Formats: sequence, structure tokens, C-alpha cells
Amino acid sequence: MTIRVGVIGTGNIGTSHARDLATRVAGSTVTVLYDFDAARSGALAAEIGAIAVPTYEELITSDLVDAVLIASPDQFHAEQALACLAAGKPTLCEKPLAPVEADAKAVLDAEVALGRRLIMMGFMRRFDPGYLELKGQFGPDGIGDPLIVRNSHRNEIAPYGLDSALSLTNAAIHEIDINRWLVDDEYEWVQVLTGRSGPLTPAGEHDPLFVLMQTTSGTIIEIEMFVQSQLGYEVTCHVTGGLGVSEMGDGSFVTTARARHRGHGLPAQWLGRFQEAYRLQLQGWITALATDEPMPGASVWDGYVGTIVANRAGQALRSGERVPITLPPRPALYA
Amino acid sequence: MTIRVGVIGTGNIGTSHARDLATRVAGSTVTVLYDFDAARSGALAAEIGAIAVPTYEELITSDLVDAVLIASPDQFHAEQALACLAAGKPTLCEKPLAPVEADAKAVLDAEVALGRRLIMMGFMRRFDPGYLELKGQFGPDGIGDPLIVRNSHRNEIAPYGLDSALSLTNAAIHEIDINRWLVDDEYEWVQVLTGRSGPLTPAGEHDPLFVLMQTTSGTIIEIEMFVQSQLGYEVTCHVTGGLGVSEMGDGSFVTTARARHRGHGLPAQWLGRFQEAYRLQLQGWITALATDEPMPGASVWDGYVGTIVANRAGQALRSGERVPITLPPRPALYA
Amino acid sequence: MTIRVGVIGTGNIGTSHARDLATRVAGSTVTVLYDFDAARSGALAAEIGAIAVPTYEELITSDLVDAVLIASPDQFHAEQALACLAAGKPTLCEKPLAPVEADAKAVLDAEVALGRRLIMMGFMRRFDPGYLELKGQFGPDGIGDPLIVRNSHRNEIAPYGLDSALSLTNAAIHEIDINRWLVDDEYEWVQVLTGRSGPLTPAGEHDPLFVLMQTTSGTIIEIEMFVQSQLGYEVTCHVTGGLGVSEMGDGSFVTTARARHRGHGLPAQWLGRFQEAYRLQLQGWITALATDEPMPGASVWDGYVGTIVANRAGQALRSGERVPITLPPRPALYA
Amino acid sequence: MTIRVGVIGTGNIGTSHARDLATRVAGSTVTVLYDFDAARSGALAAEIGAIAVPTYEELITSDLVDAVLIASPDQFHAEQALACLAAGKPTLCEKPLAPVEADAKAVLDAEVALGRRLIMMGFMRRFDPGYLELKGQFGPDGIGDPLIVRNSHRNEIAPYGLDSALSLTNAAIHEIDINRWLVDDEYEWVQVLTGRSGPLTPAGEHDPLFVLMQTTSGTIIEIEMFVQSQLGYEVTCHVTGGLGVSEMGDGSFVTTARARHRGHGLPAQWLGRFQEAYRLQLQGWITALATDEPMPGASVWDGYVGTIVANRAGQALRSGERVPITLPPRPALYA
Repeated sequence: MTIRVGVIGTGNIGTSHARDLATRVAGSTVTVLYDFDAARSGALAAEIGAIAVPTYEELITSDLVDAVLIASPDQFHAEQALACLAAGKPTLCEKPLAPVEADAKAVLDAEVALGRRLIMMGFMRRFDPGYLELKGQFGPDGIGDPLIVRNSHRNEIAPYGLDSALSLTNAAIHEIDINRWLVDDEYEWVQVLTGRSGPLTPAGEHDPLFVLMQTTSGTIIEIEMFVQSQLGYEVTCHVTGGLGVSEMGDGSFVTTARARHRGHGLPAQWLGRFQEAYRLQLQGWITALATDEPMPGASVWDGYVGTIVANRAGQALRSGERVPITLPPRPALYA
Repeated sequence: MTIRVGVIGTGNIGTSHARDLATRVAGSTVTVLYDFDAARSGALAAEIGAIAVPTYEELITSDLVDAVLIASPDQFHAEQALACLAAGKPTLCEKPLAPVEADAKAVLDAEVALGRRLIMMGFMRRFDPGYLELKGQFGPDGIGDPLIVRNSHRNEIAPYGLDSALSLTNAAIHEIDINRWLVDDEYEWVQVLTGRSGPLTPAGEHDPLFVLMQTTSGTIIEIEMFVQSQLGYEVTCHVTGGLGVSEMGDGSFVTTARARHRGHGLPAQWLGRFQEAYRLQLQGWITALATDEPMPGASVWDGYVGTIVANRAGQALRSGERVPITLPPRPALYA
Repeated sequence: MTIRVGVIGTGNIGTSHARDLATRVAGSTVTVLYDFDAARSGALAAEIGAIAVPTYEELITSDLVDAVLIASPDQFHAEQALACLAAGKPTLCEKPLAPVEADAKAVLDAEVALGRRLIMMGFMRRFDPGYLELKGQFGPDGIGDPLIVRNSHRNEIAPYGLDSALSLTNAAIHEIDINRWLVDDEYEWVQVLTGRSGPLTPAGEHDPLFVLMQTTSGTIIEIEMFVQSQLGYEVTCHVTGGLGVSEMGDGSFVTTARARHRGHGLPAQWLGRFQEAYRLQLQGWITALATDEPMPGASVWDGYVGTIVANRAGQALRSGERVPITLPPRPALYA
Repeated sequence: MTIRVGVIGTGNIGTSHARDLATRVAGSTVTVLYDFDAARSGALAAEIGAIAVPTYEELITSDLVDAVLIASPDQFHAEQALACLAAGKPTLCEKPLAPVEADAKAVLDAEVALGRRLIMMGFMRRFDPGYLELKGQFGPDGIGDPLIVRNSHRNEIAPYGLDSALSLTNAAIHEIDINRWLVDDEYEWVQVLTGRSGPLTPAGEHDPLFVLMQTTSGTIIEIEMFVQSQLGYEVTCHVTGGLGVSEMGDGSFVTTARARHRGHGLPAQWLGRFQEAYRLQLQGWITALATDEPMPGASVWDGYVGTIVANRAGQALRSGERVPITLPPRPALYA
């Protein structure tokens, strides 16, 4: 059985997803596309043998669409997710669930009201071989329980200019999610330290940001978020456990010595590091739909928590103070 | 368009391929299976929704089969490949093309007579991200032209006992192929040095073997082939070029420090290293078939050369001498 | 000209220093030893051709002693340093200058009153090839200015039991000093986070400690101090600069693959990592004395600042709050 | 007791040795220098407080000289070593013992006639922490017995032009010695393969050279000797043992990520890699002399074997054939 997917949003990431679904994922086909730029969706439709439609509503309710992938700009995720719930279509929604907490909450409430999980959040790092290998080191035969987790997230440049708040809600939100998943725990507070900034940082902004969090069981989580690092794209994660230490590098295969230097190249941007994670996420989603298994990725609850924590981090950035994180009770649907 | 594949041979590797085609490769389905052990093919057929047939001939000629994957024991590859050619079905044939040169030659002659390439050889390392990254370092902006290539190929144990000749034809044949591909050149001679063997080596056998070859342009190729290394499964490749040096490791993501030791684990066997290469090979094959593009992998010519060189290496092992390698002219079909 | 050194304290580190001075440092000899345990100093004296005396005062004022090395228990450092100043003998004083700030201040005042620098502090990491290579990466051709520094300091076990306050004043004081030296800046505040502890941590103690500091120019300094890490002895330092990132590992030469594992061993304790730094520190001290050059290591001012900061960190550990660090004006002698 | 050393030859390496002995080695002083260029020896003498004499004979017989270090051009080593033996002065002789076998033999015969070992050969890699760590991996708790050893020896450029024969006798002689020491065995044959050369290789020369040897117990030794590699100075050694594999890298402490690249620098020439080995060799020599212990380094026998093997390698380069290595019986003095 082939899952026919409709893709909302055909920018960089939506196009990447649509091509993966059409050519690199078993059991899926892309049938319908929507983008606010009809020329863009039309061109992609021609390339992969889909049709383009003029509204996302039409896509969601189309008889040609078994499942929906939302890859539109962040501010539209929630309303489109609600429409998918209303149509009863399984959905993979790019992160974040919503920039605004109330919007995220509305999706959560709607899914809880529906009584079954239809939406999977696109926190693709949960499918990354690096993070999976890292989490596999935990436990009594490995490094024990995680006590301190130190993350680095570096972009070469911020393509649309630097906005420190956006560094948290758009970029560090990946660490906010993946660390919850790694240590299987919720955050209690967040603090954001600023200090000396890199040479490309405009006045009034801060880069890198140093985000500090602690979970209910006391694990300390730290994120260096550096969006104009200039060095290339790099994500690292270093876990101190009760019995040992594990760190995730970039999985490079090749070392080269040349011109008095020995090492390896770094990618320019995130697809160079996470393309395989995206593919595995899509494959996991499609396989689950085809076999009627629970979807394997992050849930709407995870998306909602991500939005809450990212917003608390934003408060913490503005105030300079430690900001407590209080979550509503987790609905039974996400137990 | 979905390519319906029939799989001949449902042992370890055939099963792995069938599952990949059924669940991890876009555009393919597995429709028919054959194995000399009907219970084994039957069980897998039930698992993946295929049918099992009692002869490979029936599979090859089945209307349900668009393309054939040959994963039977080595000695049957040639006759089955000939049957696929006769049936005009595109085929992916596991290495080697044949243990015996005359058998490999028969397949080559038949494909040349047919006048078009229907068979792709399963030298999956050509699809491995590690080898691709390594080859990507060659050239004037990298390490220049390859001058010396040093390979290591280590198995933890030889599951069915150690047979030095088999180490060449069954295991080192991977290096024989991938080094030709890496340096894009043919071999002129081969020599096999033996010396001190590992502690598990039975009397009369040699392990490791030290294979030395040189290509027509003078590149020196060396293979350490160690099938009872005890250390785990490991494949490395180190290239000295005119401007620098590149070496391929195992692409491990995670380093762990524990119990006075810092490092990472090694897999027990080859799937732990090359599973992704197998998947990418299958995807490349299926995509080529679906889009009517040339098949992207090794050709029958490559398979034939592999058999010749492995057999010369066997002679060199027995004689201790340098054995020249003379290839017939390359047919125009493989230009 | 040979510098004749008297060594106060012949425990582990004093013995190591005395042997280095006697057999691995150019231009020095050890002539006189003192230890509260006369048998211990006597045995070492016999080994290296020195004499043992019954009081440290006798050692300091001996005509056989050109220079003094203080390696006694921490609480005696200050009074012995004062005696060296009174005797006008150049001195290498093991860290810390004193556990108690007033005692450290007394030494500072005495040296300032003397008007010349006679005491060098034994912060040996300033001579470590690893830290020197790390600092050499700073600047416009390297990683730019340091913005965030993340340190790990792990002992396998705490030999005399775990005391969290002592982890700061005895162990993390090394990071307190070396980070000031690395970034060439003073601290403004310190905070100590505690959370989930390792399995060997007794009730009421915390291990690891997570020390957070910031310097006057805004550089963020973080220390993971883990004295019962069980993994071996390991010190790492990771610097995020405005143009790149550098991290210091352990300088291991050899990688071994064995038993499904690839990596290298870690030392059991600190001499396995820093023996060469100790030797280079002693050589630098002796060469400076022999050539009448300024002593190359940490000063009494550095020692005094170390004691202040370590004590503020202790306060921060008790209070859980961020504690400001106010230093007195730096005397002109240490400009 | 201070050992007073006379240094013959004050070029690069002689100057480095003299400065080490004067300022970085315990228990030594440099009293007398000789160089054919009197201005050069005079300047160094003034720097380190020695005197310069007009002939090496005067240096060797001087009452101010307890021990002699020979760092003259290769062709003078033997005659100067003979003079040291005649004078009964302990000597550290730079490699090679002599370029010509008969000259090396004359020194061996003279020392045997003397009946005690006075000369240590300056094969400094035996003191290198990297090689010592590598050898420490051998044995039943490590990688077992060595079966195959693969060496790389790369210079950035050949300062005085490329001469393939000289690559063997002057550069690869280091591998010839260190591999004998590593595997504790003698060579049985040597072969030199040539092939594709690097872009800077003049017509008629070969670079890299691929040297292949085998020892009496069957261990295979391979050397890639590349004197115009352009990549910097790099020496690696990779040992396949019966239980595992160990490889020696460069002991770099720091990894830097910058400009889409992660790695570390390589030195321009050999002192950047082996300076510490030289110092440790000198310290070992001086300590042995001061304590009347046997000298710890390579012997005249080792030097003689090195010359023989390097010369056989030269023959092998010219003939392209495998050349047997027959050693005379090892004199009892070197048992």
C-alpha cells in the first residue's frame, strides 16, 4: 500500500521532503503540493509528477491525499495542523508546532479532543544515527545516567540577519527537544547568559547565546547557540554520565592531510549534517502509516513543550534571570 | 512506476536485500522469491507479501517480475545471470560474477552478444558514503592523483573455518573491485606475501594475507586481508596522493570515555559497516530502472575482471611469485 | 652555575619534584630536604644525595640552599613562603598559595613590601604543551577571541573521600588559574550548580559540580569538576572563539583496535597527564634563576586571586547564588 | 657529577644537541665544540659558554671532555667514532654509523676489540613517547605479536634536491632501525617498489618509494618513504598484531574547527615531531654515563645493521628485485 502525501510549503525544506518522499522513501508518493508561490509549487509538481493546488485547504481535503506534510512558514503550522485534524489526515508537521504558545495549545487541545494521535512533529534529530548512537551509550553497561549535557549548535551565517530571540525559537528549539528526548525528562528552569559576542554580531544582539537549563531529576543541560559562527555547520553533544562520558561528533569518514593540516571538512549548512535524519524520519512516518503502527517521532505534546520552553528561554534572554518552567499536566493521550 | 523484483536466494544477504527492497527503497516491491530451501523462502515470502516459487527459472520468467536480484551461493551466479539475460530481465547480481573465469566469461559474452547492459554487479562499496567521500578528495584541490593505496579488511572470525584461497576470492575481491574503481585503472600484476599468522590460523593456512598489486599507471595497491583478526569487523583505506594523504575510517559518530579507555565500538560483522551502502545500491538500481537511466553500479566487465584478478591472486598465493595480469580487450559495450 | 634547591615536603608531589630537579632538569641539584616525617625525608635524601634537616626554617636559611620549593600540605604554604621572603630566597610554591584569603594576602603584602618578586606559584598547567598549543590558536589567524570556555576536570576517585568544597579549592583551582591565563582576564562572578550526582557521591555532597563564571570582558567560563568520575583522569578544555573553535584533548599518540573497540587508554591519575608540565615548569624556574631572568610562571598575585576565587566559589556552592568577585587593586609589582 | 660533552659538528642537529645538553638535560655541560666552519662553532661556543677547537682530534682528546657527541656530516662518523674508541671516550654518534659498510664494520670491529660498548647510536625514535606507547601495546593483553607493520615517512620537501638512493640511506634508515627495535627481529630480505611519482619528482628519480621487508620470524614490514610529499612532516606507524591493531599518530593535543575545516596543523619538519625524542635520548645517555649504567639506546651493532640494510635497499631500488639480507654473526658484546 502506497501512502499518498500532500506537501504544504515547497521552500527549501518542503522541496527536500517532497523529493525524498518521491524518490528515497519506500511506500510513499507525493500527489499534491501547495505553496503561496504557485510558480514554485507548480515547478516541483511537474518534476515529481504531482499536482499543485491553490489553497492548503484543498490539499488537505483532497481525495488524492492520505497524509499531509506541513513545511510552510512557522506561523502557519498551527492553523494547518488544526485543519488536518479536522480532516482526520495523519500529518507530519515541521518544527515548531507554533511560535505562539496559545496556538500550540489549540492544536494540543484539538488532538486531545479527537482522542487519537494524528500529528507527528518533525524533530528529525530523534532519527539521526549520531544521536541514536549517543543515547545507546546510556545505562549501566555504558556511561550510566546522564548528569550534564553540553550542546553546541553552530551555523556558518544567519542567512536573514541575526535576531537573538529567533536563535532560540528557531534554532535552539532543536536542542530543547533533543535533550528532553535524550534524558527523558522535563525542564524546570532556563537561563540565558550573554557575554562577549562574535565579530559579526550587530549592536543590541547577542551571539553566541549560552542557554542553561535543569531538569526535574537535576540533569544540567547547556546549549551554546552560535548562529554566526563562521566556521561552518556543526552540532555536537557531550554527555557526562555517572560512569563515563560520551560525545557526538559529525560522523565524518575521511581524514585528509594536506598543506600542513590534517582533518576533515565541515558542511556549509544543516542538510550536510542531517539529510539522513530527515530521510529516516520520513521513512519511519510512512512505514508507521502503512502498517498502522504508532508514529515513531515527536508528538504534539513534544511540540507544545518545545514552544513553551523556547518562549521561556526568550523571556530569560530579555530578563537575564533564571525563568521557571511550569508545564500543564501531560494529557493521558501522550502517556 | 513500481519495479517488481524477484529475489533468488534468501540466505543472510538475500533476506537483507529483500527486506530493504520491500521497506526501505523507494519504487520497488518484492513479488517472487526462490531458495533451494523452500521453507526459508516461504517464510520470508509470508513476511513481506511475496510468493515463493520452486525454481529460479520460474522466478526469472514470471510475469510478476520486472527485475531480478541474484543472491544465491557464488557457484550459481553465472548460470542464473545467463538465464536473466535470456529472459531480458534487468538483474542485480551479488559478487562474484563467478568463481571460475570461464563461467564469468560466458556471462560477459552473452551480454555482449545481447548488445545492451542488463546486469549490474553487487559491489556495494561503490555506493558507500565513506568510499565516495574518499574518492572525492582526489584531484588538484585535494590530494592529487593516487600513488599508493593501502587497504585493511578485517573480519572478527571466519564463520565456516579459514581457507586462505577463499579469503581472496570471497573477501579480498571487494578490495580488488573498489580499488580499480577508486583509481580508475587496471592491474598489471599481483603478489601475495605470507608470513607470521594470527593465533587462530590452522596449520597450512595463512592469515593475514598481504596482497600487493600495481596498476598500469604505476599506482601501488596493497591489501591486508585478515579474516580471523578477532578485533571485530573493520575496513580501512589509506590513499597517498601526489599532494596529500586521505584515509577512510568507520564514520563513527560517538566517542566514549569509560573505565580508563576512550574510543568507540566496532561492529561484529560487515552489515554493521555497509548496511547503508547496500540500501543505496538498491535504491540506485531501482531508480535507474524506473527512469530508464544506465545502471549506476559495477558492470559485468567489472565482475569479470574481479574474477580474473582474484584467480591470479590465488595463483600468486600458491606460487609465492608475482603473477602478471593480462586482460582481454574491453568490449565496446563497457567503454 | 648550578641552582641548589631545598625541598619542603616530601610527599607524592614533593618527591616527584625533587627527583625531577635531581635527574631531569638542567642546572639544578637538590641539597636539602625537610618533611614532618623525618624517615620519609631521610630516605629520599639518601636516594638523591641530599641531606634532611629537622625544621623547614633550617632548610630555608641553609647556606646549601639557593632556592626553595614548597610542597608541604596546603595550610603551611603561606607561613613557609613568608619565611622564604624573609630569607630572600627564590621560591617555587605549590598551589594554593593558602586556603585562607588572609594568609594569602599576608604573603602578597610581604612580597610587595620587599619590592621584588621572589615567589613563583606552581600552577604547572601554564607549562603544559596542550594548553600552550590551545592558547596558540587564539587570534585573527586562528579562532579569534575566546567567547566561551568549557572545561572538564575528572578524577577517577577521590582518594581521601569526597568533600565538595575541597573539589573547588583543591582541584577546580587549577581551572580557575588556567582560564584566567588562557583568556588573560579577571572574573566578575561565580556560580556553582549542583544537580544529579554520580553513583559514588555520599549524601550531602555533590559531584560533579558545574561551576560557571564570567570575566570582565564577558567571556563565559564553565567547569565540570567531577572528582569521582570513575572513568580515569581526564582534563579537557574547549574554547569557542569569534572565528572558530579549539579543543584540547589528551595528546595520546596511539589508537588501538581490539575486542570490538577502537581507542586509547586514559591515565589513572594526574601525573599521567601532567608530568611533562611539571618538568617544564621546574626547568623554566631553574633557567630563570640561573640567568637572572624573571620567573616565567604564575605570581603571588595569581596565587592570591586563585584563593579569592576558589573561596567565592565555595560561597556560591553553599548559597546556590551567583557570587560577585571583587579583587583589590593589582599592585604595581605584578603589572 | 656533571658530564662534560664535546660536540663535533655544529650544523642544525649538532647545534640543537649542544643547546639541549647545555640547557635542557640534567647533569651535562658542553665544554668543547668543533666544526669545519670555525666561525659557526665559535659563535655557538660563545652562546653556551664552551670553547671551540680547530680539529676534532683535539676535541676528542681534550681533558675538558668526558664524552663526545658526533654530529658531523655522515661520511665522517666512522673515522671520528674510531678516534673516540681510541681515546676511550663514551660517544653518542648521529645516524648513520657510516654510509659505507666497510667503514661501519671497522667501527664495529674496533669496539669489539676494545671489549666494551663505548658508542651509542643516535636513533632517537627509540626514545620517542609515540613509539614507546606503540610498543607498549604489544603482547597478550594488547594486540598480540606484530604480524604486519606499515610505516609512512613524509617530508614536505627535500631541501637539497631529491635523490632516491639518499631517501633510503638518509631517511628510511630511521624506519629500518625503529622497526627492528619494534618487532625485535632481523630482516631477511628487502624489495623496493617504484611506480607513480609525486608531481615534484625529477625525471629518473622515484618518490614515494615503497619499501617491503620481511623478518626472520615472518613479520612483514612496509615503508612508504615520500620525501617531497608537500603535506608537511609526518611519520606514522601501523601495526597489525595477532589480537588487534595499533597505530601511532602525531600526538597532537588540539583540534580546531575553522573555515569549514576541523583538524590540526602538521609541522614543517622533523624537529616539530621529534624534539622531545632527541632530548630524552640525550638525557638517557647522560644519566647512564653519570650512573655507570649501560647506555640505553642503539648500539654499534644496530648502526652496522642499519647501514647493511640501507645498502641492500639501495641495491633493491636499482635492480627492482628482492634482495636477501645476510648478517654476520652478532658479536657477543651485543648479545
